[in-house]
Amino acid sequence: MAAPTPSNRPNPEHIFSTLTAYQQSAALKAGIELDVFTAIADGANTSAALALKTNTAERGVRILCDYLTIHGFLTKEAERYALTMESAVFLNRHSPACLASMAEFLGNPWHKKNFEMLAEAVRKGGTASSDGDNTKPKEELWINFARSMAPLTAPSAEFIAGLIGAAGGKPCKVLDIAAGHGMYGITVAKRNPNAQIVALDWRGVLEVAQENARKLGVADRYTAKPGSAFETEFGNGYDFVLLTNIFHHFDVPTCGKLMRRVHAAVKPGGKAITLEFVPNEDRISPPVAAAFSLVMLAGTDAGDAYTFSQYEKMFGNAGFVKTTLHPVPDMPQQVLVSEK
Amino acid sequence: MAAPTPSNRPNPEHIFSTLTAYQQSAALKAGIELDVFTAIADGANTSAALALKTNTAERGVRILCDYLTIHGFLTKEAERYALTMESAVFLNRHSPACLASMAEFLGNPWHKKNFEMLAEAVRKGGTASSDGDNTKPKEELWINFARSMAPLTAPSAEFIAGLIGAAGGKPCKVLDIAAGHGMYGITVAKRNPNAQIVALDWRGVLEVAQENARKLGVADRYTAKPGSAFETEFGNGYDFVLLTNIFHHFDVPTCGKLMRRVHAAVKPGGKAITLEFVPNEDRISPPVAAAFSLVMLAGTDAGDAYTFSQYEKMFGNAGFVKTTLHPVPDMPQQVLVSEK
Repeated sequence: MAAPTPSNRPNPEHIFSTLTAYQQSAALKAGIELDVFTAIADGANTSAALALKTNTAERGVRILCDYLTIHGFLTKEAERYALTMESAVFLNRHSPACLASMAEFLGNPWHKKNFEMLAEAVRKGGTASSDGDNTKPKEELWINFARSMAPLTAPSAEFIAGLIGAAGGKPCKVLDIAAGHGMYGITVAKRNPNAQIVALDWRGVLEVAQENARKLGVADRYTAKPGSAFETEFGNGYDFVLLTNIFHHFDVPTCGKLMRRVHAAVKPGGKAITLEFVPNEDRISPPVAAAFSLVMLAGTDAGDAYTFSQYEKMFGNAGFVKTTLHPVPDMPQQVLVSEK
Repeated sequence: MAAPTPSNRPNPEHIFSTLTAYQQSAALKAGIELDVFTAIADGANTSAALALKTNTAERGVRILCDYLTIHGFLTKEAERYALTMESAVFLNRHSPACLASMAEFLGNPWHKKNFEMLAEAVRKGGTASSDGDNTKPKEELWINFARSMAPLTAPSAEFIAGLIGAAGGKPCKVLDIAAGHGMYGITVAKRNPNAQIVALDWRGVLEVAQENARKLGVADRYTAKPGSAFETEFGNGYDFVLLTNIFHHFDVPTCGKLMRRVHAAVKPGGKAITLEFVPNEDRISPPVAAAFSLVMLAGTDAGDAYTFSQYEKMFGNAGFVKTTLHPVPDMPQQVLVSEK
C-alpha cells in the first residue's frame, strides 16, 4: 500500500498524502452523499448539468469531481466526467452491486471520534472512548451497520453458503450469532429451502435482519432471538453456527467463553463457521486483514484481528476438534470452519 | 494516485481503502505525536522497548507500528521495526530535514471540521464554516501554520532565493506578504547579506517569523509590518515582493486587488514572486496541485488553485508586463515570476 517514490531522492509526498488522506475519505463520502455517481450514470456529465441534478453549486461540484477524478473514481475528458468501471459497479445506485451505503458506517462519527483519540488508545492499549466494551448493547451503531453494510457481504455470504453445501437442500438448523443485517443466515436460507435460521442480535438490529428476511422471502424460516451472545440461551442441536465479524471485538478469554457456548449449541458432527480478518503470523500481511487490528485498537477495549494460530488455539480449547482456513475469493476476509 | 486493481474483475478495495483513509492520517499523526520514529532511530525497535521509550502500552504500540509498516512508514523483520528511508529523513526528530511538525497543521481540527462538512460546501460552492474569509485575521490558525510548516518550505525557499539571484549579493529590498514563519524572506536574507526584508502578517504570526529571523541571524535586516495585506501601507521601491501561498485563499477580484497593491509597491524593473499550487488547464493534473482546490473549497469562501492562464490574466490586469512559470524541483508547487 506504500506509494513508492519514483526517484532515489527521499520525497515527503507519501507522508504528506497520508496526513491529508482524511480529505480523500471526506471527498468520496460527499460524492456518495450527493449521489454524483448516479447523476453521471444518468447523463449529467458536465459540472453545470451535475449542479442542476444534484442541487449543488457548479463551482463546488466541479472541484469535487475534479478531485474524484484525480483519485481514480471518475474520468474527465473535454470537461465531461464519466464513471470508472469500479464506480459504475459499486457507486451508481442503479447498479445491483452498489456499495454506496457503506460510506455511512465506515464514515460514522463514532469511528472518526475514536481515531481522533488514537494516540491515547496507543498509550492505554485499548480505545480511549468509554464505550469500547462490545459485549454491551450499542444498538444505534449496530443498526447503522446493519442498514449500511449488507451489500458488502454478498460474496462472503455466498461463499459460506457454498462451503456448508446449502444448495444440497438437506434439512438443517442454523444459528446466526450477531446477525446484524442477517445476510449470512438469509443467504443460506435462500440457497437451501430446508434450512431453518435462528438469528441472534440486539432487538433493534434484528428488526433490520427480519426486514431483509421478509424482502428475500425466507421470513417463514427465520426466527429472531433478541439479546446478548453471552447471556441469551442459544438452544442446541444446530448443524451450523455462524460467527461473522464478532470475535475481533473481544479479548481472548471473552472469545473463548463465546466459543464454549457455541460448542454446547452445535450438534455432534456440526460446525462453527467464523468469518474474520485473519492476518498472517507476521501481523503485517495481507494488508487489509492486518490493518484491521488498528480499527479494533481505536474502538474497542481489547479487540484484535487474530491470527489463525490464535483462533486454532481458542477454538481447540473450546472443544472443537479441528479448524480449517478458507480464503474468500476477491475479499480480504477468510472463513474458519471448526468441527465438533 | 488511483490504486489499480490487479485483476480484471471490478473490486471495491479502492473504494473501501479511500472511505477508511482517515485512519491512515490518524495513525501517522499518532505515530508522530508519540514520536515512535525517533524512538526507533534511537534503538527501541521491539514493541516492548517502544512501549517503555514512548510511554505507551505494548499492545497499542505493536498494533500502531504494524499498521505503519503495512502503509510503508516502517519495516518489520523478526518482530523488530526499522525506519524506511523516508521516515529516517522526514520523521525522525534528530534529522535536519524532519517534517514531523507538519502533522499539527495538516491534521488541525479546523481543517478536519471543514472536511466533515464537505457535502454542504459543495452545495454552497464555498466553505460551510462561518470563518472562510481569509482577508480577516485568524491568528490562532496561522500561528499554528507558522510554527509547524516551516521545515516543508526549505526546497521552495532555496529555489526562490536562487531564482532572484540572491547569492549575487546585490543590495535589495524585499517585501514578504503573508510571511507566516517568514522562511521565504529569511532564506533570501541568508543568501544575500545585502537584502533588507520587510515581513507582513498578523501580529502574532510575525512573532514566529521574527523568532526565526533571530535564530538564523538576519534579525538586523528584518522588519515586521503587522496587519492586513489589503489595508496595511506596503511602502514602495521594492526589488521583489514575495507572495507565497496567499492567492489561493481568495476569489479572482480579491487576488486582483492584492496584485494591484503589489504592483504599486514594486519598483520599475522589480518583480513579484508568487509560490502556488498551479494545476494544468485540465484541472486534474498534476495531482497534488490540482487536488489542492478541494482544500480551498472546504475551508474558504471562494479560494481555489488557479491555473497559469488565470494567474497570467490576473497579474496582467494588475499591470505586470510578463509572468513566467517555474516548477520547484521535487515539490508540487510552482513559482510565478511577474515583471513590472
